[in-house]
Amino acid sequence: MIVVAGGSGIRMGTEIPKQFILLNGKAILLHTLERIAEEIEIENIILVLPESEIDRWVALSSGTKFENLKCALGGATRYDSVKSGLKLIDKDALVGIHDAVRPFVSQNTIASCFKMAEEKGSAIPVVELKDSIRRVFTGTSRAKDRTKFRLVQTPQCFNAARIKAAYEKPNKGNFTDDASVYEEAGNRIHLVEGNNENIKITSPEDLKIAASFLS
Amino acid sequence: MIVVAGGSGIRMGTEIPKQFILLNGKAILLHTLERIAEEIEIENIILVLPESEIDRWVALSSGTKFENLKCALGGATRYDSVKSGLKLIDKDALVGIHDAVRPFVSQNTIASCFKMAEEKGSAIPVVELKDSIRRVFTGTSRAKDRTKFRLVQTPQCFNAARIKAAYEKPNKGNFTDDASVYEEAGNRIHLVEGNNENIKITSPEDLKIAASFLS
Repeated sequence: MIVVAGGSGIRMGTEIPKQFILLNGKAILLHTLERIAEEIEIENIILVLPESEIDRWVALSSGTKFENLKCALGGATRYDSVKSGLKLIDKDALVGIHDAVRPFVSQNTIASCFKMAEEKGSAIPVVELKDSIRRVFTGTSRAKDRTKFRLVQTPQCFNAARIKAAYEKPNKGNFTDDASVYEEAGNRIHLVEGNNENIKITSPEDLKIAASFLS
Repeated sequence: MIVVAGGSGIRMGTEIPKQFILLNGKAILLHTLERIAEEIEIENIILVLPESEIDRWVALSSGTKFENLKCALGGATRYDSVKSGLKLIDKDALVGIHDAVRPFVSQNTIASCFKMAEEKGSAIPVVELKDSIRRVFTGTSRAKDRTKFRLVQTPQCFNAARIKAAYEKPNKGNFTDDASVYEEAGNRIHLVEGNNENIKITSPEDLKIAASFLS
């Protein structure tokens, strides 16, 4: 499992990248790794970090079970970071790619994704929309049927050879997840049910929500 | 402002409708009404309730500033409930329609909606997506560009004559909000920035989130 921790603190209004913000006294990244480690052996976890954050990680992980975690250096974009992590993955494996700031992924979500990916070559967790949705156009918008859409979470799991090949193509620049990279390369994406708590922590409100999930 | 409280407790796994569930010791509906009353005079608020919940409301509101709130009886569907509330609205007014289970709408969101609706005839609050999104088809799905979509909140505000006319048309059955009814009748929807805390409380996780917003 590749855990992508490339984020900066800009959106959160903090100086440290959001994966290092404390939640109940512990960095979000450690919460996420602990959850992942319930399902995946630690030697099969790869952490992708910006070079500027390596010292912080070494200090944070020292003395924990993650202190010898395999790390890869992140790049300028999420695309580059994932590509860097994928270089450490054997092509005959299955690989999951997970956001470091999603500490509430359930064991069931992780297990379902790997099971489906093993059968079908890919699997990503999705949830239904609770709010109505609109498509925006320049100067206007139009209601869409929310039952025809799904919100996408992680881990996104793939046949390693195929996702590695997909990431060898030039970055088209508008990918927001790995499934769209995989799909763009001509592969088929399969969906599994995610869990509603599996939020991406990107704003101060999300931090409050995260604290409530821990209490 | 019409506050639509037609929900049943089925999705929440409770016996009482979700608008009556307690949050910090107070029914969600009362939290919502108090927030609305910071911006709108109480005599301009109309509560739409299922007939079966009137006794509960009378008991709950007794002794509060909402005990003489104008009420309308809800119908079998949300469409019928909104239509029932609209009958009490003067056609020359502006009307907002708000979900009873969205207690965290900001004063700024309410004010922006009414201001834009006064200028343009309609306004609804929307927020950007944080997760990637996919369109599902029978047996398959496809990544979509999340920057081209918005999640829709309430209050949704309209020229009263036009929204009343829109609700006089037959219910096509697939409307999940008032904006889509208004738009289907040939009117134009205008968007304003909503607030991220303005969630719709529909699940047990949402209740935890709501509690964290109050703390």
